[in-house]
Amino acid sequence: MHLQSQTRGLRYFIEIAYDGTSYHGWQRQPQSITVQEVLEEALSTLLRSEVPVVGAGRTDAGVHATQLFAHFEIEESYSFEALSHLKFRLNRFLPEAVAVNALLPVSAEAHARFDAVRRSYEYKIHMVKNPFLVNQSYYFEKPLNVDAMNEAAAFLLGRQDFKCFSRSKTDVKTYICEITEARWDQDGAQLKFSISADRFLRNMVRAIVGTLLEIGQGKLKPAALKTIIASRTRSEAGASAPAHGLYLTEVAYPKEIFEKYGE
Amino acid sequence: MHLQSQTRGLRYFIEIAYDGTSYHGWQRQPQSITVQEVLEEALSTLLRSEVPVVGAGRTDAGVHATQLFAHFEIEESYSFEALSHLKFRLNRFLPEAVAVNALLPVSAEAHARFDAVRRSYEYKIHMVKNPFLVNQSYYFEKPLNVDAMNEAAAFLLGRQDFKCFSRSKTDVKTYICEITEARWDQDGAQLKFSISADRFLRNMVRAIVGTLLEIGQGKLKPAALKTIIASRTRSEAGASAPAHGLYLTEVAYPKEIFEKYGE
Repeated sequence: MHLQSQTRGLRYFIEIAYDGTSYHGWQRQPQSITVQEVLEEALSTLLRSEVPVVGAGRTDAGVHATQLFAHFEIEESYSFEALSHLKFRLNRFLPEAVAVNALLPVSAEAHARFDAVRRSYEYKIHMVKNPFLVNQSYYFEKPLNVDAMNEAAAFLLGRQDFKCFSRSKTDVKTYICEITEARWDQDGAQLKFSISADRFLRNMVRAIVGTLLEIGQGKLKPAALKTIIASRTRSEAGASAPAHGLYLTEVAYPKEIFEKYGE
Repeated sequence: MHLQSQTRGLRYFIEIAYDGTSYHGWQRQPQSITVQEVLEEALSTLLRSEVPVVGAGRTDAGVHATQLFAHFEIEESYSFEALSHLKFRLNRFLPEAVAVNALLPVSAEAHARFDAVRRSYEYKIHMVKNPFLVNQSYYFEKPLNVDAMNEAAAFLLGRQDFKCFSRSKTDVKTYICEITEARWDQDGAQLKFSISADRFLRNMVRAIVGTLLEIGQGKLKPAALKTIIASRTRSEAGASAPAHGLYLTEVAYPKEIFEKYGE
């Protein structure tokens, strides 16, 4: 699916948001409906040619995104008005659960995945039953010590080997990620975990949240997180928290990607 | 279903919230699942006897509630701890889309419907496609003049005959309601209409919102609302706005109902 540079078309970034409840994640799969598939179908139908899209990263089944970028190429150059009209038509064509928030011309080499310099996720938890958050937040009934969870979260910061939070089956070359933010915020009966890094391993945020929830329940001390990280062993960490509380909230790129186009 | 006073049990108010998406409204119906039915089933199962509940009012299919009270009677007197445990068990038993937020002992004559002195509704609209609001707010794409909608909303205030916003098939004796609040608030791409009255006619809020949306689009002048109200004719007003943007948000009672019990 990765577009080769021999294509002489122009490159665009598409910024989308989606409720992942009904999708088998971002990445195309043979038997299940994914967000990449519905997006490629919409672009291909409206642009009347096959338009593959390359996403900033995959999300698992049930995981949401409030901001995900993908790139694609088309033969024509679109004016601002034409892009704005295409965005309108895409939103009409796409299902209710997928929205296009922007279409941006980028430099010809800009790559939605490789050029991303930072990704941010949020994990939402509600502690009182709430009919309006059923698929949008994890209902966790047991009392939690949020201070202990924040004390532990501080040990995540910095450039470290996070193999302990990685799926055992993986083809990555390195488990080193640099986490620049990891913090819990409480608003009444709702908790939000915000985490940012240069990159994330598959299932990493959910494994981190599951481990921090064990600490919040007092099953482990906050300092245990240091030992878990040092172990580089997935089974030392806690179970993965469910997908439906997780949101990809930001993918950041160097400014040049968007500026080059005008030159 | 209305409990007669010969029952010598004790009376309780139950405060619930529900996402109305999957329900055919509040009130029991032969062929469809309603909130009243699932609530009566839960109470009857946990209390091991038939427990009819009387709600503060009906909501239509798809309409939500963040606060609705109903009353029921049981033979036993429940301690604070026992009520708290019953609330916990009810929340476990009920579907995810229905939550019990309180169980309150009330005076023996307290009536969830007849004693309510004020009801409040909110109607939510979003003007930019949002995957996370699909069943929880009405997506309205056309530009709206919110100032004009507020100018018109002011004509709703006071004690008036609102037959123009009532279903034609109805068995009410009077169309007079006293509206004490009717206001639009904008927060970015989201609009919220808040309306309070001593009573509402069936479908009234959705008919009001539909009419105000016509004014917001410039199809009618704000002052046209006065003429519509004076006409007492449903066809003069606008089409009903869809159910999924509507929330019953408050049912208010005189304090005495809750205080009497302790005497």
